[in-house]
Formats: sequence, structure tokens, C-alpha cells
Amino acid sequence: MSNLNPPRRLLFGPGPTQVHPRVYEAMGKPIVGHLDPFFFEVYEDIRRDLRAVFGTQNPFVQVISGTGSAGMETALANFVERGQKLAVFTAGFFAERLVEMGRRHGATVVCSSKPWGETFTGEEASAFIEREKPHAVAFVHAETSTGARQDLPAITGPAHASGAITIVDCVTSLGAMPINIDASGVDVAFSCTQKGLSCPPGLSPITVSPAAVDRLRDRKAPCPIWYLDLKLLLDYYEGAHRYHHTAPISNFYALREGLALAREEGIEARFARHQAMHDDFVRRIEAAGLEMFIPDEARRITNINTLKVPQGVDDVQARKRLLEKYDIDIAGGFGPLAGKIFRIGLMGPLATPDNVELLTGALIESLH
Amino acid sequence: MSNLNPPRRLLFGPGPTQVHPRVYEAMGKPIVGHLDPFFFEVYEDIRRDLRAVFGTQNPFVQVISGTGSAGMETALANFVERGQKLAVFTAGFFAERLVEMGRRHGATVVCSSKPWGETFTGEEASAFIEREKPHAVAFVHAETSTGARQDLPAITGPAHASGAITIVDCVTSLGAMPINIDASGVDVAFSCTQKGLSCPPGLSPITVSPAAVDRLRDRKAPCPIWYLDLKLLLDYYEGAHRYHHTAPISNFYALREGLALAREEGIEARFARHQAMHDDFVRRIEAAGLEMFIPDEARRITNINTLKVPQGVDDVQARKRLLEKYDIDIAGGFGPLAGKIFRIGLMGPLATPDNVELLTGALIESLH
Repeated sequence: MSNLNPPRRLLFGPGPTQVHPRVYEAMGKPIVGHLDPFFFEVYEDIRRDLRAVFGTQNPFVQVISGTGSAGMETALANFVERGQKLAVFTAGFFAERLVEMGRRHGATVVCSSKPWGETFTGEEASAFIEREKPHAVAFVHAETSTGARQDLPAITGPAHASGAITIVDCVTSLGAMPINIDASGVDVAFSCTQKGLSCPPGLSPITVSPAAVDRLRDRKAPCPIWYLDLKLLLDYYEGAHRYHHTAPISNFYALREGLALAREEGIEARFARHQAMHDDFVRRIEAAGLEMFIPDEARRITNINTLKVPQGVDDVQARKRLLEKYDIDIAGGFGPLAGKIFRIGLMGPLATPDNVELLTGALIESLH
Repeated sequence: MSNLNPPRRLLFGPGPTQVHPRVYEAMGKPIVGHLDPFFFEVYEDIRRDLRAVFGTQNPFVQVISGTGSAGMETALANFVERGQKLAVFTAGFFAERLVEMGRRHGATVVCSSKPWGETFTGEEASAFIEREKPHAVAFVHAETSTGARQDLPAITGPAHASGAITIVDCVTSLGAMPINIDASGVDVAFSCTQKGLSCPPGLSPITVSPAAVDRLRDRKAPCPIWYLDLKLLLDYYEGAHRYHHTAPISNFYALREGLALAREEGIEARFARHQAMHDDFVRRIEAAGLEMFIPDEARRITNINTLKVPQGVDDVQARKRLLEKYDIDIAGGFGPLAGKIFRIGLMGPLATPDNVELLTGALIESLH
């Protein structure tokens, strides 16, 4: 018997979030080899169900054997070549990571920056893109560090008008909020497993539009990162099943199960549930005199809620009380938002009326 | 209930290999956050036990959130800068991967190459290194594609005499064979979880000597790969616990358990068990008139055995019979060894007398 004895947390943070029992069950099933036909069946189930949560008909839907950050690096390393211009819209921590990675890969990075928590209008995006004429435009759909949600077409529209491809961080939104990749003009989107899909972390789903696949085929230099080279990954996962790396089988079992849960619930119903629990949360905390950090309702992420730390409250102490008394794990702000906001995830098994009631009650009590 | 229903394979291939039931049990335990103190306790348990299987006192022992191939790329991207000379000793598939990755990262790669399955003597290594005077020397300890084991000091001695650091692929050996990192003169070693440690794939342990840590600190340009940047990882896993990526918690639970199993058995006893089962295997197959691919006993990997496909036997058909009749998964050769060898893992829960008997009996029958 294993003597590993983890504390039982209620993971109401921005992620990793609560894992569904069926996902744990799937993860405990016996592994097969990474070239076993059964593994590729699992992989195809995953691809099919990912299309539904991404909202895409893209043939190119794959999974990276690393966390969401590896997905971000995959997108940049494969779709922005050394010396090409990358335009990034930044108003939070993860957008700044796009900048950092782009620079490491030798891109000429130009930024349109706003204070953390803000978003960009179509006019703002258009003016910047028309001036810079970048090869690629990158931004974050749902910025976990702030709780702000960027309207996708506001940036993808001007980007396409200018001939740029769009790279969008969907780490927080996938599985909990509609993304509608195709209708939203997203060329390259990457995500994770430990937020909207209710799985443990470890994999990064990625989808690529046919137009961006053409760019990938046309690239001259090989991808600078062997492990994240999408051309090599395609040879492994499709067609010839040519060995690339040893896929983390158990994580794929988990992801298949997390997606099956979403499919069984119904994708639209799942999105609506997260929206409803978000609305319930906002109603409850506003009734208690608390205030959301993102003022515009339409610009809020539904599955990660940010609210202002009330004046006179020490956010570290409040979170400590929540953890010690209720085993409830939530997150604070960081960077310019340190001490100023709470970040609260309401996702998957925790996005239910009972859990919202439990969380808001405990939170309000812990502020005093 | 999950409807995932994997076939029950006996994973006698080169990896992934059979996972111990306690590892599955640990992996099914509830996750905590990637910044939870409990996670860092698990991480420290892992570091302590990794030191024992690596055979090192290095303070720098960490785990990469990717498979063994990500570990290889981490080693090259962090310790070989653009324009520096990397010497690689190649006699198999994974050594060639070192070359490929080194080139992608802008190193000037020089190779000393032999046919697949051979190894290098101290004289050969010395002559090559003295002529080339590389910044770093890379090679594979246990070459999974051929079954050959390189004597470590034969290469690390001349490398150090020339002032080069040594980078060694220990993907196949860790946990099943002695490596003795410190005594063997290895500066940077990386491995995986799905071979000698009896876990599912997904993580890559890495250790770095103090001398190589100094080189890491001295490097001018940042690591070209953000996700695999060891300086950033150090900030996350040690000291400040500054967020880098969301560690795949469940995989760390699994690794902790796999290492606990090795510790409970006793590291030396575990190595001896694998050696004994290797000897038993060789005795049995030679008694049946079969022949090992690596002629020199001292140059054979103990936990992955390669034997020649007898004349007139179709290796694909033989493996198909093994799988269909016994659910036994073994691997064939590839590249220049396609159709010429079988690759058979005897590791972890399958490295027992009963299992060696089962495997050899089934194998011999399947050749007819």
C-alpha cells in the first residue's frame, strides 16, 4: 500500500482544479505501449472530443506531452520563425509570457500593452496591427492572472485583414467557455487539461487552422525545439505512427475521460452550467458588498472569477483561514495585482450550486 | 464509471514497461495545487530517492515535466550554447537524436560514429576528444535501440582531461542498473520514469554536477527553451517556489511511489535482481540455441536484452503471435537493425524468475 497521503483540498483556485473521480479511475487503468493500436484509438477519441470543446472542424487537433506552457511554446516555436515579427497584445501575466517566449525564439516582438485586467477593442487592435504589419498576432483569450476575457474577433479580424496568423492562449477557457475556434478566426490555439477539462495537469491540446498548417509546411528552418516539433508529432500521431517520444499514456487516459464527461453532459450545457455558476457567484458576493475586479460583465471569464480584496483585509491571512478551516484553496493576485484580488475557480465538479454556496459562505466569513 | 477498457498487456518491451500496482494507486490520489506545501514535500522525497538511484551527492537533482526526450533536450539546450562545439559518440538511434537536437540548438556538432551496437574504448574516446577539443561531450549510457552499454569512464575520463563537460543519456539504465554518477564522472544525466522506475511515462529526472551548475550560471544567453529552462525551474522547485509551470502532480505522485518501491527493496538488491534475471534470460535463450546481439557480456544492458532474430524467422509474425496468444508485448529492431533483433525488457515487476520463464517459453514457441 502506498503511504502517500495528500490533504483533501477543495481546489477553488485558478488551476489545477478538482479532478472528477472517473478521471482518477481512468488514470489507474493499465498502460499499453506508446505504439499500441489501443493507444492510437484513445488518441483518436481525444481528437474527436477536443474538436467539440474547441468548436472547430480543423483536421489538425493534437496533444502536446507537456503542460499548457509547453503548448504555448509549441505554438510560438512552430509558427514564428527567427526574425519574423510577432505582435502581442498584453494586459496580464500570460500575455507577457508570450512576449518572453517569442523573444527567446528570435522573433521581433512588438507589444500593444495595457494595464493588467484590461482588454482590447477592434479599433485599438486594428490601429496597432495596421501599423506593425506582423507575421503573427498573439494574445490570451482568458487571462488567468486578471480574470479578463478578450473578445476574439476584435483582434483576429484585423489580424486576418492584414494577412497575419493568430495565436491564442486558450489555457483557461477550453472546456468551460465557448471558444468557437473557426467562427472566431483563431489559427493556432493551445490549452491545458487541469482547468476546464477537470483532469490533472500534464498535457496541452492544440489545434491549427488549415491556413496555418500551410505555413507550417512552408517553413524553411526546422522547429528549434525537437520535443515540440509539430511536423514530427504529426508523423507519430497520424499516418505512419513513426516513433517520436513515449507519450504519457496515463495522462491520455485521463484526458479521454475528462472529455467523455464533457460530451456526456453536452458541451453547450457544460458552458451554460459554468456561466450560471459564475452568475450565482457574482450575485452572492455582490450581495455581501464585495466587488468584482473586471467591471464589464461581458469581459469576465466565467470559470475564473476575480474579485477585489476589500480594504483593510489581508489577502494572505484570509486565504490561510480558508485553507485551514475549510480545506479550500483559492489564489491571490500577483505582480501588479498582488494583495489586490482573489482568484477563484468554479470549474468542473466544483461548478455546482452547493459548491458555490459553500465557497462564498466560507470566503465571506474568512474576510473577517 | 469509465468505459475505458485497455487490453492487459505484459509489457516486455523496452518501455514503457509494467507499472507496479502501488504506483497506479498513488496516481489515483487527490491532487493538490502546484504551489501547495504538500507538493513540495513530495518533490523533496523524489529528489532524495533519485540521488540514491543515480548514485550521486549532487545537490542539483530535479525533474522535468516531459518525457525522457524532453530531458535530453533540456540537457542540450541548457549546457551547450549556440556556436559551442558538441562531440557525440554515436552507435545507435538515441545517440543520433543527441546529434539532431544539438544541431537544432545551434551547436557545432562533431561525431565519432560506429555501427549500431558497438561501444567506445578509452583510447578511441581520447583520440577523438583530444583532436576535437569540444565544449561538451554527449553519449548514451544504455542504448535502447541496440542493447549496448557504454563504459562511462572510458568517455568521461578523456572528456574531463580535455576540460569538457559530459552529458549522458541514462534513460534506460536509471533504477535498473548502477550508474554511479559521481564516481563515473557524469556531469549532466537525464532519464525517464517508464523503464527502470516502473512508472508511466511523463517525467524526466535530471542531475547536474556542481561544475556543470557553474557553467549554467555563467551562460550568457538565456536558455532557448523557456519550458525547459533549468534556471527558471530552480526558482520554482527550490527556494522561492516562484511559479514557472503547473507541475503534473499525479505523475509526481507516481514517481514518488516508484522510487519508494526501489528504496524499500534496496537499491543494490534491485540492481542485483535485474542482473540475475538478465543472466537467467541469457542462459535460457542460449540453451534454446538463440544468440544475444551484443557479443561482449560486459557491454550488455541488463534490463533491455537484444537477441538476434534467427535465420528464416519473420520477426513481425513472431511478435504478432506473442501478442495474440500471450498478450506479451516485445519490440523489434529498427533502422539498420530492422528485422534483425528482438528487444526485450525485463524490468521492475516483470524481472522475476516466473516472468523470465514465462517470457522465454512463449518467445521460443513463437519462433516456430
